[in-house]
Amino acid sequence: MITRMSELFVRTLREDPADAEVPSHRWLVRAGYIRRVAPGIYSWLPLGYKVLRNVERVIREEMEAIGAQEVHLPALLPREPYEATGRWTEYGPNLFRLQDRRGGDYLLGPTHEEIFALLVKDLYSSYKDLPLSLYQIQTKYRDEARPRAGILRGREFVMKDSYSFDVSDAGLQKSYDLHRDAYVKVFDRLGFSYVIVSAMSGAMGGSRSEEFLAISDTGEDTFVRSPGGYAANVEAVRTPAPDPVPFDDLPAAHVEDTPGTPTIETLVAVANERVPRADRPWTAADTLKNVVVVLRQPDGTREPLVIGLPGDREVDLKRLGAQVEPAEVEPFTEEDFADHPGLVKGYIGPSLLGGGPGEQATAALGTESATGIRYLVDPRVSTGTAWVTGANEPGRHVFDLVAGRDFTPDGTVEAAEVRAGDPAPDGSGPLQLARGIEMGHIFQLGRKYAEALGLKVLDENGKLVTVTMGSYGIGVSRAVAAVAENTCDERGLVWPRELAPFDVQVLATGKGTEVLEFATDLARQLDEAGVAVLLDDRKASPGVKFADAEIMGMPTIVVVGRGLADGVVEVRDRRTGVRTDVPVADALGEVVTAVRGRPEFDRADQL
Amino acid sequence: MITRMSELFVRTLREDPADAEVPSHRWLVRAGYIRRVAPGIYSWLPLGYKVLRNVERVIREEMEAIGAQEVHLPALLPREPYEATGRWTEYGPNLFRLQDRRGGDYLLGPTHEEIFALLVKDLYSSYKDLPLSLYQIQTKYRDEARPRAGILRGREFVMKDSYSFDVSDAGLQKSYDLHRDAYVKVFDRLGFSYVIVSAMSGAMGGSRSEEFLAISDTGEDTFVRSPGGYAANVEAVRTPAPDPVPFDDLPAAHVEDTPGTPTIETLVAVANERVPRADRPWTAADTLKNVVVVLRQPDGTREPLVIGLPGDREVDLKRLGAQVEPAEVEPFTEEDFADHPGLVKGYIGPSLLGGGPGEQATAALGTESATGIRYLVDPRVSTGTAWVTGANEPGRHVFDLVAGRDFTPDGTVEAAEVRAGDPAPDGSGPLQLARGIEMGHIFQLGRKYAEALGLKVLDENGKLVTVTMGSYGIGVSRAVAAVAENTCDERGLVWPRELAPFDVQVLATGKGTEVLEFATDLARQLDEAGVAVLLDDRKASPGVKFADAEIMGMPTIVVVGRGLADGVVEVRDRRTGVRTDVPVADALGEVVTAVRGRPEFDRADQL
Repeated sequence: MITRMSELFVRTLREDPADAEVPSHRWLVRAGYIRRVAPGIYSWLPLGYKVLRNVERVIREEMEAIGAQEVHLPALLPREPYEATGRWTEYGPNLFRLQDRRGGDYLLGPTHEEIFALLVKDLYSSYKDLPLSLYQIQTKYRDEARPRAGILRGREFVMKDSYSFDVSDAGLQKSYDLHRDAYVKVFDRLGFSYVIVSAMSGAMGGSRSEEFLAISDTGEDTFVRSPGGYAANVEAVRTPAPDPVPFDDLPAAHVEDTPGTPTIETLVAVANERVPRADRPWTAADTLKNVVVVLRQPDGTREPLVIGLPGDREVDLKRLGAQVEPAEVEPFTEEDFADHPGLVKGYIGPSLLGGGPGEQATAALGTESATGIRYLVDPRVSTGTAWVTGANEPGRHVFDLVAGRDFTPDGTVEAAEVRAGDPAPDGSGPLQLARGIEMGHIFQLGRKYAEALGLKVLDENGKLVTVTMGSYGIGVSRAVAAVAENTCDERGLVWPRELAPFDVQVLATGKGTEVLEFATDLARQLDEAGVAVLLDDRKASPGVKFADAEIMGMPTIVVVGRGLADGVVEVRDRRTGVRTDVPVADALGEVVTAVRGRPEFDRADQL
Repeated sequence: MITRMSELFVRTLREDPADAEVPSHRWLVRAGYIRRVAPGIYSWLPLGYKVLRNVERVIREEMEAIGAQEVHLPALLPREPYEATGRWTEYGPNLFRLQDRRGGDYLLGPTHEEIFALLVKDLYSSYKDLPLSLYQIQTKYRDEARPRAGILRGREFVMKDSYSFDVSDAGLQKSYDLHRDAYVKVFDRLGFSYVIVSAMSGAMGGSRSEEFLAISDTGEDTFVRSPGGYAANVEAVRTPAPDPVPFDDLPAAHVEDTPGTPTIETLVAVANERVPRADRPWTAADTLKNVVVVLRQPDGTREPLVIGLPGDREVDLKRLGAQVEPAEVEPFTEEDFADHPGLVKGYIGPSLLGGGPGEQATAALGTESATGIRYLVDPRVSTGTAWVTGANEPGRHVFDLVAGRDFTPDGTVEAAEVRAGDPAPDGSGPLQLARGIEMGHIFQLGRKYAEALGLKVLDENGKLVTVTMGSYGIGVSRAVAAVAENTCDERGLVWPRELAPFDVQVLATGKGTEVLEFATDLARQLDEAGVAVLLDDRKASPGVKFADAEIMGMPTIVVVGRGLADGVVEVRDRRTGVRTDVPVADALGEVVTAVRGRPEFDRADQL
């Protein structure tokens, strides 16, 4: 059946929507693919829904190919299983919670580990039943604090989530690898550039996880890679810790007056002026910056935390956040300072030194210290390193304060920003930074959920053993935006063939009935040849039709118009912009070849 | 790809689930198609989800055939549009309501008239854009007071809902007729018996509506039909009102002592004893029973209502409920009686008579009466009919109380039970009653929603006119249950070919490797011929495999077993039970013919 523009439920917009921050959002709205209903909540119009279903089809095919079986679980879920695993609380405000008419607690599922574990527990009881992989393509809900970028980060969205069930760790590894391979195939077919990076498991728990990131300047995730093949989400980057060095020969710590130096910059200037080094000037990297934050646990309790890191680095709140999940990081307020008089703003340091030279330092930070505040340091603050840092008195700093001698932190934390040029933790060279959109995330969950929910099977010896699980997600609606983001140009959307709502857009651009008749006839023949056709049969100017076709982004555009008098139609490739005049007799064949025979988009940029 | 029972995520149950009230629920759970997560909330296992998607496919094909375009709207919806049409309140406790992290009010969509109207308003502005039909297949939510019968009445369920948009009433009629025809095709293809009946529009509003009911003894809906072709949901049945008759010659009303007669039965007995009729004995049909109820509006206000009806009929609470929607009917409690001393329990009547004979009656019921309580009567209580009814004094009744002379109700109401043998309102003969499951409902909404939400377009004269809408629903998940209910037998599910998860179940029933090899080979050949095959390759007894195949309900069962030695396999038709031995060389061809060539199930029982 030919779809006619005169009947298709679509309107293109000449102007960018006011709230559109990123190209995919702008074009998907302008081209009439999606419409906003509420923050982070969108309707799919006919064109957009076709793309969404094409993405679903690709995913289904690759999931079936690895033997995963499709099921469909509810979105409205009872509280109890999420209570059992702790996630009812851990999700904090990100969870949509509600009550039914009898006062029963429910949630809108953000992900379904609990319900899948219970389902398998309900049906299966023996190691012989495993391995098992189940998946669903289903609507999910997260009450994002900052829904943004259209369907790129929505509050209601479509996900493909799979779960694997195995008896042994080796089985889990195999299920994980199968999914990883299937994801490579899916993202290759979706036709956009992506990387696979090591990732934090975060609130999901588990031992290993990797993310599939669409490479995009507008992405919310930052990742690193090295020439030698290391790749990780920036949150998962491990800072190589220097080996401890002996500190016996280092000078003793000493407190100096450094008036008016509440910042690293002022401190370095004053230090160079009043306490100059013999070998070279002081730099920010010589200072130990101590940043106070508050961790808010999902149950509402607040705990102050001090992070010590080299003064030339900032705290990366996303990296810190990933380490402390499910707690959230909040600023340490003036009120908090008032409650903790031991913390002298601008002059915080890990130690208190008495008046006399050589006198033993006492701890000012740390759970065992006077303040009792937890103190975690960057891995670079390793044993034997000496620092300039706050003396816990206004206008005074300590010099030559040595880690492991004058202070002992409660531990280390990966909270410092990662910079281009930093060494990869595996020694594979300097890191490069880039941005991406999280498209898929695969987890080796292990036994956390199965343990909490009692999912056990009998093993070969008749003994009950806890099942080990994997969990594997693809953002289906997000994929539509990510592909759009990855492929659009300055004139509009440019769909890869596998996802395009129609293969071909045929434009009838001319006034005579002959043009419309020929265009309609060509469309009909294409349709009969199995090509999905959108026929622009509107009473509109050629300019309007050209512009709409470019915004809407079908891979092939056929222009039936003035050339018809000369016996030709124009075939345009939306992506390359190449235009070819084709004799009318060859038009059908040419277009069918273009649709079927065209090489796929550039293969994904895999690491 | 062949699916193997040894790998399929399914377990059949030997016992009925404890909560299963109806056959479809029993078999869908026992055959491993669905599993309960919470009251009225179910998971679809692989077999069930295949059936659900088959139903979706049939619906999509028929919707596309009438030019309806598929879109997909959110389930999580903001309050405002539903506030504008009044349904935020009217839905009462049936609506799942929740708040987001900022305290914004949201609901889980029970149906989407508002959001569709706003979407069309967003895109369209001219009569030239219409007619338009949009549809979606989407998850809906209703917080049913009594979720029951598995997926037959769930709280989370899948619906196909379409909406039509027209400028004129004639256009709406055409869109309505197109949908009606498409529904006939859908339900014919789904392969079960149904009727199309006139229905109440209820809370949806609008001028005309019809329901498609699957005929089923376990259905929640009662419908009537007459030999002459009248068909209606019992809630929509209009009682033919007798013409007014003159009452000049009727005797005057008179109050009599009827001690101990708070019920119709006791009243008739005492009347025959103490105030006998000359022509025949009194019957219940001569009495006017007055039933008091309370209407609770969605905003919580309560209003008493008295319904007067012939004493031989009961009030049908579902019929009454449908008339007073969105108000709900509640019992009139002892406390309510205490608050209304004018109502004498067991002796309520519409009039008060003074002592003297021939004295004018004064109103005891009605908005203008002493009690001020609204009084509605059955249409049979028409002008000129005489009744025995309560005298509003304990142990006393009025005789010869004539409607239109001695009392005037506030109006009529369709609240009396409909009985087999009652005349059809169109004179087409006596009514028969039967039960059914509501599978589809089509509404001519008119301009109610468009008016409330400002959906207007410019007409041919450049004048803004309000759009008229239709709304058309099919219960998709319910259809799975309804078909199961309609086709199952005492041994399990029996799927019509169009919906079956697999065309054929091949059972390898024997110990030799030869049997399994032949079965696998046959399955592979069938798969290559485009037949969807489920191969029972388990190490299980033939009895288990036979029983499972019958419970699971694929239309064709092929048994590869003992017969193989004699060169035959057995082909069973699940529905008819017919078994045929087929030479192995013909097996492939026979089964392919059975799958492709078999006549469809009995066509629907249309009126």
